[in-house]
Amino acid sequence: MVKVSIIGTTGYVGAELLRILQQHPDVEPGSLISRSCVGERLIDLYPQFRDSKFANCILEDYDNANFDNCDIVFTALPHGISQKIVADLYNRGLKVIDMSGDYRYIDLEVYEKWYQQKHQFPEINEKAVYGLAELNREKIRKADIVANPGCYVTASLLGLIPLVEKDIIDLDNIIIDAKSGVSGAGKSLKPTNLFNEVNENMKAYNVATHRHTSEIESVLLELSKRSASDKLQILFTPHLIPIKRGILATIYVDLTVNYSQGEIMELFQEYYEGEPFIQIFENGFPEIKYVVGSNYCQIGFKYDQRTNKLIIISVLDNMVKGAAGQGVQNMNIILGLKENTGLTARAVYP
Amino acid sequence: MVKVSIIGTTGYVGAELLRILQQHPDVEPGSLISRSCVGERLIDLYPQFRDSKFANCILEDYDNANFDNCDIVFTALPHGISQKIVADLYNRGLKVIDMSGDYRYIDLEVYEKWYQQKHQFPEINEKAVYGLAELNREKIRKADIVANPGCYVTASLLGLIPLVEKDIIDLDNIIIDAKSGVSGAGKSLKPTNLFNEVNENMKAYNVATHRHTSEIESVLLELSKRSASDKLQILFTPHLIPIKRGILATIYVDLTVNYSQGEIMELFQEYYEGEPFIQIFENGFPEIKYVVGSNYCQIGFKYDQRTNKLIIISVLDNMVKGAAGQGVQNMNIILGLKENTGLTARAVYP
Amino acid sequence: MVKVSIIGTTGYVGAELLRILQQHPDVEPGSLISRSCVGERLIDLYPQFRDSKFANCILEDYDNANFDNCDIVFTALPHGISQKIVADLYNRGLKVIDMSGDYRYIDLEVYEKWYQQKHQFPEINEKAVYGLAELNREKIRKADIVANPGCYVTASLLGLIPLVEKDIIDLDNIIIDAKSGVSGAGKSLKPTNLFNEVNENMKAYNVATHRHTSEIESVLLELSKRSASDKLQILFTPHLIPIKRGILATIYVDLTVNYSQGEIMELFQEYYEGEPFIQIFENGFPEIKYVVGSNYCQIGFKYDQRTNKLIIISVLDNMVKGAAGQGVQNMNIILGLKENTGLTARAVYP
Amino acid sequence: MVKVSIIGTTGYVGAELLRILQQHPDVEPGSLISRSCVGERLIDLYPQFRDSKFANCILEDYDNANFDNCDIVFTALPHGISQKIVADLYNRGLKVIDMSGDYRYIDLEVYEKWYQQKHQFPEINEKAVYGLAELNREKIRKADIVANPGCYVTASLLGLIPLVEKDIIDLDNIIIDAKSGVSGAGKSLKPTNLFNEVNENMKAYNVATHRHTSEIESVLLELSKRSASDKLQILFTPHLIPIKRGILATIYVDLTVNYSQGEIMELFQEYYEGEPFIQIFENGFPEIKYVVGSNYCQIGFKYDQRTNKLIIISVLDNMVKGAAGQGVQNMNIILGLKENTGLTARAVYP
Repeated sequence: MVKVSIIGTTGYVGAELLRILQQHPDVEPGSLISRSCVGERLIDLYPQFRDSKFANCILEDYDNANFDNCDIVFTALPHGISQKIVADLYNRGLKVIDMSGDYRYIDLEVYEKWYQQKHQFPEINEKAVYGLAELNREKIRKADIVANPGCYVTASLLGLIPLVEKDIIDLDNIIIDAKSGVSGAGKSLKPTNLFNEVNENMKAYNVATHRHTSEIESVLLELSKRSASDKLQILFTPHLIPIKRGILATIYVDLTVNYSQGEIMELFQEYYEGEPFIQIFENGFPEIKYVVGSNYCQIGFKYDQRTNKLIIISVLDNMVKGAAGQGVQNMNIILGLKENTGLTARAVYP
Repeated sequence: MVKVSIIGTTGYVGAELLRILQQHPDVEPGSLISRSCVGERLIDLYPQFRDSKFANCILEDYDNANFDNCDIVFTALPHGISQKIVADLYNRGLKVIDMSGDYRYIDLEVYEKWYQQKHQFPEINEKAVYGLAELNREKIRKADIVANPGCYVTASLLGLIPLVEKDIIDLDNIIIDAKSGVSGAGKSLKPTNLFNEVNENMKAYNVATHRHTSEIESVLLELSKRSASDKLQILFTPHLIPIKRGILATIYVDLTVNYSQGEIMELFQEYYEGEPFIQIFENGFPEIKYVVGSNYCQIGFKYDQRTNKLIIISVLDNMVKGAAGQGVQNMNIILGLKENTGLTARAVYP
Repeated sequence: MVKVSIIGTTGYVGAELLRILQQHPDVEPGSLISRSCVGERLIDLYPQFRDSKFANCILEDYDNANFDNCDIVFTALPHGISQKIVADLYNRGLKVIDMSGDYRYIDLEVYEKWYQQKHQFPEINEKAVYGLAELNREKIRKADIVANPGCYVTASLLGLIPLVEKDIIDLDNIIIDAKSGVSGAGKSLKPTNLFNEVNENMKAYNVATHRHTSEIESVLLELSKRSASDKLQILFTPHLIPIKRGILATIYVDLTVNYSQGEIMELFQEYYEGEPFIQIFENGFPEIKYVVGSNYCQIGFKYDQRTNKLIIISVLDNMVKGAAGQGVQNMNIILGLKENTGLTARAVYP
Repeated sequence: MVKVSIIGTTGYVGAELLRILQQHPDVEPGSLISRSCVGERLIDLYPQFRDSKFANCILEDYDNANFDNCDIVFTALPHGISQKIVADLYNRGLKVIDMSGDYRYIDLEVYEKWYQQKHQFPEINEKAVYGLAELNREKIRKADIVANPGCYVTASLLGLIPLVEKDIIDLDNIIIDAKSGVSGAGKSLKPTNLFNEVNENMKAYNVATHRHTSEIESVLLELSKRSASDKLQILFTPHLIPIKRGILATIYVDLTVNYSQGEIMELFQEYYEGEPFIQIFENGFPEIKYVVGSNYCQIGFKYDQRTNKLIIISVLDNMVKGAAGQGVQNMNIILGLKENTGLTARAVYP
């Protein structure tokens, strides 16, 4: 059995980790940390965990928590706060999977520009591995710190990586129009997250300034044939839609070579062959309801001859493949377990 | 491994059976029957089952299906149609779990009055066991036909059974005000099921005439000390709310004895002790979101001294504990498996 | 032209008053007061009022606001806070329509028990008229202070008044099972109002303890033949459903006389004859979508012979007939305008 | 008073016309035509019109309807069917406002290619005026047939017209990523319109093949400096989101000149000066909730220096400015009424 602790248990990502780990056959509870609910019973906050292996857990304070024999710690904290906690855990010899943006950047200048804060632990940042299994599986296996990718970033990258690696699209005209459910905004008490403000509404936000822009650019730049000094700039527009979970990214690119729909299909299918969580659509497009509650990312696309553009649609559940599920996937890799252990649930439909 | 077939695969209950069985460690696919989609690939209809054990299934016609070595057949068909199919399967020596109302009544006069049709197979109806495990576990174990209870009925009965068995409420003034998500109406193309008609709306329907009234009355009458010739009449009002899954039943009863909140609590806790899927709330009330996607039924209540009424709130997911999950629970009982095998998933929250 | 001021402009009821008054042909803007947004432009908060008669309004502080020539002041404030402001406005000779619960009770002992606070202005409370036009039209005409009824209360009373006045129901067994949209909870930043907590969920709350219970009881007691010293106790259970606007109240009563469905129909139709905003259904039941965005209250009912119970369904939009619309209706009465001026909009459907 | 008839009354656009005309001070009911509900009372289908000027209307058959003294006929019919009815009405000397796509194209080759059917009435098509008031007000004034623009088209064009007229964007790289509520799909009984299929879901559809693509292209081509033989091809991707009403179009264009955010703002503000229904945001972006239930189109934009792209966000209510409201606006123009008569309602919020 593997002992797992969570820091930031009572946020949505923390709760989602519990939901997944509750079913994971190899996991037993370590410490569940929560700043705001120390001393409370987990099941008073989340009655869905009655009679589960977490049923008797009491929420603990970070400072007093005991991480002895703990095999993995998940940190589900706001960026900035994560920096220090992850560094501390690393220094105590623990393996950490971090859900924040703090350890996702190789180039800390980019991080500091987009997150508007200094990185206090550059040496520890160097130990972190970017946790997109489809790209970095081998590095993750040996990692002490895994920086779990952003939700929008996961959906966007999985739709673009094969094209960028094959070098067949114009890197200077990539547009990602992404739509997300509200759980991506977390549990924070902002007026914009109220039911009355969200239902029967839709809006764009952080137009051309969302932090995930820089994370997508950083990974693509590394994958591309461009040198680090070159720029790779995409246009990323996030939108909020009245659903709880799910991201749908509509990606527009220009092909630089003469590829047919069938050739692009072949490229995607080969690239993702054997991947346990990537599903390529031969016909039609994926919808959010096909993945809600599951760790799958589904990808469809269409080459439009009229405009010579390729449209890629990528969907996932931002709480699962976009956060907690991908975290557990990374945990399985680190611990040498079968990669999909505890992650085989399918979409809850309808 | 247990071989399981489904008749009526492409309706919502059929799809939910697949979702649950997909994760069930002891189940392998038998025939998947669907009148409307014969010859189609399951994953073209339900892309969420790509890469699952059902991934290669082709939908079959009932008449040509092969049930050799099939251990259990689920029938997820409209009432009326189920009558004949269940009888046919029984006669072929198969064990059947029927999701319709056709085999739920001991007194077929009641059935015929409320369902407005003749029952063609009264002798086979006598073989059927009412599939509420919390009431009939031992009978289910040996049953050839299990009549899986109605969704509203399950929520209502689980909130009332301990009180009726203990004979402490007025059986002539039971009011059940129930609210259900739209999946209860199935996948049928009625204007009233359109998104535009349902969202931001709520309505009562079948006021005082819903069929589940008679099913609740039949079971309660049997449990009560009243003779079969007596009447036991409840008032049941179903409402449609703009959610996909979930039932919340608000039940109003008059106590005939002097019981405190604490004594009622004790009664419920004792009655359901050891039940794997019943959770009694010591404080507060359950909400639909605590059970969506899971097989749990949660029950809370309050004794109001002012009006001398007991208010019971019972919630469950109509697709799981109200249909497919309860069906799999019954299957596990019949097959001698651990009762919660494949059914330990918790609510998908948020 | 009539000059109208609003205190508490930026809450949902304030905004709804603006929406209605914006179309009212006889109204011109007075002061718009908001504690939290002093100095801000209204259209920066509510862009929907661009190019309207409120387009140039700047939000003001109560203490510095000028109420000269103001014909009506609406107070849309939390109870407790309203007490003092209403008293102050009354003392300054202004006519006030108060949306809070502070001036709705003749018997201040009841108020103080259910609102858990002292009433500081009992003499001014005596000047207030309960603003249910269908009951008190003539008194409202001459009132200086109108206490606008609660939203649940309006829906419940309009379904019960004809029966109680005619004295044909058992006053000791009235059950009101009410369901409301989330706007009833206002704009306050509580976790329970977040989209992620509300959508695809439903819950009961304040079971048997909601304040509106006492408001319904007070009005019914006064209407009934019972003396003030007698008790009249109802059971009222509010539920939250995932819609923004709308209340549906399902009311259960026992008839004490032998009335048919047709006789009850006649009673309702006669009682509400000529009422501009009450619509009685001869067949079927009203749904929330028939009234959303409008000032109408629709009522349907069914006498169930089996159980000898009468089920009444009453629906309205809690923001309109349950708050701002009813307020404007009262304003029209006070000012001698046609009662439905500015209030003829119909449900926004779908 | 103006006598108005509607053909296709019982669809969503028909019902929305009634909702608006019900409040229009100059309109009286003519014939209400509906193929499927001949002989039924309007208020049995739409109880929201009780006590309105349409309360006594009985739905009529087209063949037997009397259009004597009818000033305007709205046709809210599927394309194809509209062709003949509009021609027939025109030949009878009636003024028609047509909601379908049948009379929107000058170049019938384009129509026939995208709608996959022959146009039977090319000479009558020549009489039709494209009903975008912001572009064609003077022509509409004298028109006998107004072809009311498509919903997506209205949102898209209003965000692009000033830029195309000023000739400052690259016409070969226009991407429109549009999101629509479900009412745009009408009341048809398709599985994809069921609540269970739509809620908590999102999908793209008709990717690169939606008919509105050609309507946008046709209008832009005419406005541009390009000759008719040139191509102007845009990429248009519609998405379905779980809301009833509203469209949000996110438009991506490349500037061909060196314009600042301020200069673009000036361009938009000048272009739309005096327009009663266009609102340009100086800061931030519009959201669907600011316009639901109203005839306004709100536009915001951002010039992103990093990528040298201009992002324009345009929102409207597809049932109002995208259909019935725009129709009434055109009716007002034809009849010489104030253009916003009956159209001043603001968003129903929250």
